[in-house]
Amino acid sequence: MAAAQLTPAHLSERHRPTLDQALEAIRTRAYWSPHPEHPKAYGENGSLSAEDGLAAHRATLGSRFDLDQPGTDGWTGGEVSPYGPALGVEYPHVDVDVLLPAMRAGLGAWRDAGPETRALVCLEILARISARTHEFAHAVMHTSGQAFVMAFQAGGSHAQDRGLEAVAYAYEEQVRTPREAEWSKPQGKRGPLELRKTFTPVGRGVALLIGCNTFPTWNGYPGLFASLATGNAVLVKPHPRAVLPLALTVRIARDVLAEAGFDPNLVALAAERPGEGIAKALAVRPEIRIIDYTGSTAFGDWLEANARQAQVYTEKAGVNTIVVDSTDEYRGMLANLAFSLSLYSGQMCTTPQNLLIPRDGITTDAGPKSYDEVVTDLAAAVEGLLGDDARANGLLGALVNPDVKARLEAAAGLGEVALPSREVVNPDFPDAVVRTPLLVKLDGSKPDAEAAYMSECFGPVSFAVAVDSTAGALELLRRTIREKGAMAVGAYTTSQEVERAVEEVCLEESAQLSLNLTGGVYVNQTAAFSDFHGSGGNPAANAALCDSAFVANRFRVVEVRRPA
Amino acid sequence: MAAAQLTPAHLSERHRPTLDQALEAIRTRAYWSPHPEHPKAYGENGSLSAEDGLAAHRATLGSRFDLDQPGTDGWTGGEVSPYGPALGVEYPHVDVDVLLPAMRAGLGAWRDAGPETRALVCLEILARISARTHEFAHAVMHTSGQAFVMAFQAGGSHAQDRGLEAVAYAYEEQVRTPREAEWSKPQGKRGPLELRKTFTPVGRGVALLIGCNTFPTWNGYPGLFASLATGNAVLVKPHPRAVLPLALTVRIARDVLAEAGFDPNLVALAAERPGEGIAKALAVRPEIRIIDYTGSTAFGDWLEANARQAQVYTEKAGVNTIVVDSTDEYRGMLANLAFSLSLYSGQMCTTPQNLLIPRDGITTDAGPKSYDEVVTDLAAAVEGLLGDDARANGLLGALVNPDVKARLEAAAGLGEVALPSREVVNPDFPDAVVRTPLLVKLDGSKPDAEAAYMSECFGPVSFAVAVDSTAGALELLRRTIREKGAMAVGAYTTSQEVERAVEEVCLEESAQLSLNLTGGVYVNQTAAFSDFHGSGGNPAANAALCDSAFVANRFRVVEVRRPA
Repeated sequence: MAAAQLTPAHLSERHRPTLDQALEAIRTRAYWSPHPEHPKAYGENGSLSAEDGLAAHRATLGSRFDLDQPGTDGWTGGEVSPYGPALGVEYPHVDVDVLLPAMRAGLGAWRDAGPETRALVCLEILARISARTHEFAHAVMHTSGQAFVMAFQAGGSHAQDRGLEAVAYAYEEQVRTPREAEWSKPQGKRGPLELRKTFTPVGRGVALLIGCNTFPTWNGYPGLFASLATGNAVLVKPHPRAVLPLALTVRIARDVLAEAGFDPNLVALAAERPGEGIAKALAVRPEIRIIDYTGSTAFGDWLEANARQAQVYTEKAGVNTIVVDSTDEYRGMLANLAFSLSLYSGQMCTTPQNLLIPRDGITTDAGPKSYDEVVTDLAAAVEGLLGDDARANGLLGALVNPDVKARLEAAAGLGEVALPSREVVNPDFPDAVVRTPLLVKLDGSKPDAEAAYMSECFGPVSFAVAVDSTAGALELLRRTIREKGAMAVGAYTTSQEVERAVEEVCLEESAQLSLNLTGGVYVNQTAAFSDFHGSGGNPAANAALCDSAFVANRFRVVEVRRPA
Repeated sequence: MAAAQLTPAHLSERHRPTLDQALEAIRTRAYWSPHPEHPKAYGENGSLSAEDGLAAHRATLGSRFDLDQPGTDGWTGGEVSPYGPALGVEYPHVDVDVLLPAMRAGLGAWRDAGPETRALVCLEILARISARTHEFAHAVMHTSGQAFVMAFQAGGSHAQDRGLEAVAYAYEEQVRTPREAEWSKPQGKRGPLELRKTFTPVGRGVALLIGCNTFPTWNGYPGLFASLATGNAVLVKPHPRAVLPLALTVRIARDVLAEAGFDPNLVALAAERPGEGIAKALAVRPEIRIIDYTGSTAFGDWLEANARQAQVYTEKAGVNTIVVDSTDEYRGMLANLAFSLSLYSGQMCTTPQNLLIPRDGITTDAGPKSYDEVVTDLAAAVEGLLGDDARANGLLGALVNPDVKARLEAAAGLGEVALPSREVVNPDFPDAVVRTPLLVKLDGSKPDAEAAYMSECFGPVSFAVAVDSTAGALELLRRTIREKGAMAVGAYTTSQEVERAVEEVCLEESAQLSLNLTGGVYVNQTAAFSDFHGSGGNPAANAALCDSAFVANRFRVVEVRRPA
């Protein structure tokens, strides 16, 4: 593509306005996105239509995904869609002793390009990803088990939003210090001391992105783009069940880097052989200076303790709580909660797990409701939402892996089942494992129940925990956040006093709170440029998406001073 | 002081303009300081004159330094001035099981005060410290061994600058996210989704400042004020030999907090009994969420590995290098280096240790100079600078502790002594241990010399390391930064090519570089608001003073969203 070289001028013309809008959005935190959510918005101006996206996806299946990376020493693959079919894609397996030095080779030129060019190159990568959102949607769907529309939005446009948000934060952070300064210090009668100073943001080296199974792009893009935009190379180590979306991403990034005159090896893929477990070995390599990880608490804690040569950003397990105190929109509350429990079969790090409901019941606009009534009505709301199999399939997607299914089956024995999990047939994908949410009643005062509700039960499992009072609920909320962490907290109350009290708990324990959601916004969804994902201040995650702390330590500023 | 209550309006009137100037200074990085360096600038407008400062200092000596802190369970002291006299001050010893919960009590109100009020309270604390700079100078002098003028400037005005700089960064970081936002997402034909969002910066809890012996205020203030301004309480654990400057600071902070209507226990002192070593126990307390530390690599590494519940900011040992390639100002270079080696007896973390000089000599404006000539001329420059005992005392100060003296004496055996260390008598303080710098020749190609020059030899010891070439010097520079870290690097060269090469090494290894300093700016001095102290990107320190990364993770932003 010699004729289509991406010069800084081209990049600036195409993407500087978008960067400026993103910078404005993170300042105002008003709604904004340049990435349409609707599948029909694509198919023109160079973006793939639904048909072309599907065709592109199908063309990839059963093929060898060559990336022309240094150190390729074989091929590996083995992804099987949660919807049934094996993908049959083979990825390069790499010798990291060859690849890592090659990834460092382009760092100097990438540093010298400066923050703006790096940001604009990242935006070009995101634009090309956006143009292929239909293709990515299939890749995300068939690795995560998300239903198509969710894969399109969460795995496509929203992931792109989060990537762009990270670029905006990274850019802003790097240009806060001027490139040059003249310094003149008065010395009374003597002439002033004068220095000329330059300040250069320099990346730390090679960053490692350890991808997850459920949200390979959404959870991967912030770290990937934050590291790349701050002058680092990025080695992408996908979850072995969710390689394809990140392999597509790496290919696009490499193409854009090369076209813009940079070393494509600044972004590379490290796919692993079954059972190889290369993340542990990679994480402690001296070349790896930054790690982004989404996954289990055990491995996240291991990374934080052992990858001491790196900055480590982790999103781990948490236990999300909803405090149900009172509501003046009972139907809306039930509908909203039913949706949150159902979306992607509860396989989101933000899905509510523990619903804390006073055992003496709550007041509502539909009259007082006992604990049992609230639970029964919620169960009915879920059943109503998912009564139609087509709609159920569209919301639930498929269980991402056998562990989730096993956990779901075991959870039915933890207490009284208020809503059993139902098997749903997906006519398009008969091998998909589709299950509706399980709702289990637990008595919050019984010590044996605590083992259940104080652990993350990842998947379509929620607990209706009977508590003595709203005050008791708030104490349990506090303890849950403090000990187990939380990505998202919700509360329903009509009382100003309770509202203040739950806010106080979330402020003191550092958790993100949604109050009285009864419409089309859900506690488990956040919007880039406006909502923070996690707080970085409780055990569920040591970083928030996205803030300055997420980007500011991915680079350092080197100062050179000389006599003026 | 009921009549002198500090209202937000008072605080804003007094300090908002200063805060705005500080914010502007960190953006432009031009010269700025509101804290006069000259001792004669004080004595009016409520500030202590030289006489009053000395009187205040003398009044403190031999007294009990009460802070009215919760949990006081006895008294401890024992500071002895490096200039000889025992200070005789006793400080409260605390039961941390009582003190730490008491320090948490005021966190909610401190959080609710918001970033601006917190910043302005910090500026009032700094203003009162500034007014007592003469008193602080004596306290710093008689704990660190700095000479009076240096104690006045580095321990007084420059430390205040670094504290104010940290407040400015902390403020700016907290107000980047708006307090409130309206969010309205279009939904096509349906009405938009609308949310009202609030964003609150919340501190992490109690921060621990572990002070150092040599620069109790300069190295202590950035962490102290960064933590306080971001909504944390701060427990100050001074070095047992340098309690007084930080005890004075804590008293002033407590007074100001109380007058402004906040809990004075947001800042407290933890003085320790001889040999008690409380830093280790404090550092792993669950209440401690942030730690700032300046000191040995061994304890810094221990903190990073073990204080896992806290954000840990460390400044540890490093080996500072000067590359001597060529100069067109030979006299200026020698004079500049002589001053840098002499200032505070080389007891600065930024003092040059290794001077890398090609064994075939260098070119200068005074003709070619052999390695031996450069070393001899530098030794003569140091001798000239320190030939007069009064001037020598004013530059050298006193050795801070017996370890430095022992190290200095041992270092004379490491190689050929080019300049022996000389004992200087201080007529005012005959017990002070005052020594001129030792300069030792080492052959960089000899493996047995490497053990010497590749370790930090803290104190008035420098090595003139003969290297094969400038290229060899750059390789040794790179290896030294990478393996041992560096707070400051200097280079002298008239070659554009060499200049670019040394810059490249510093960019790649993340070290701050001063080029061709021949006048009144020294490699071991940095100016707040303009120069970064350390890079945070090599083993000498994991943080730079001061940048966003130093403040952005001391608080988290808690978001609450509700239907609009």
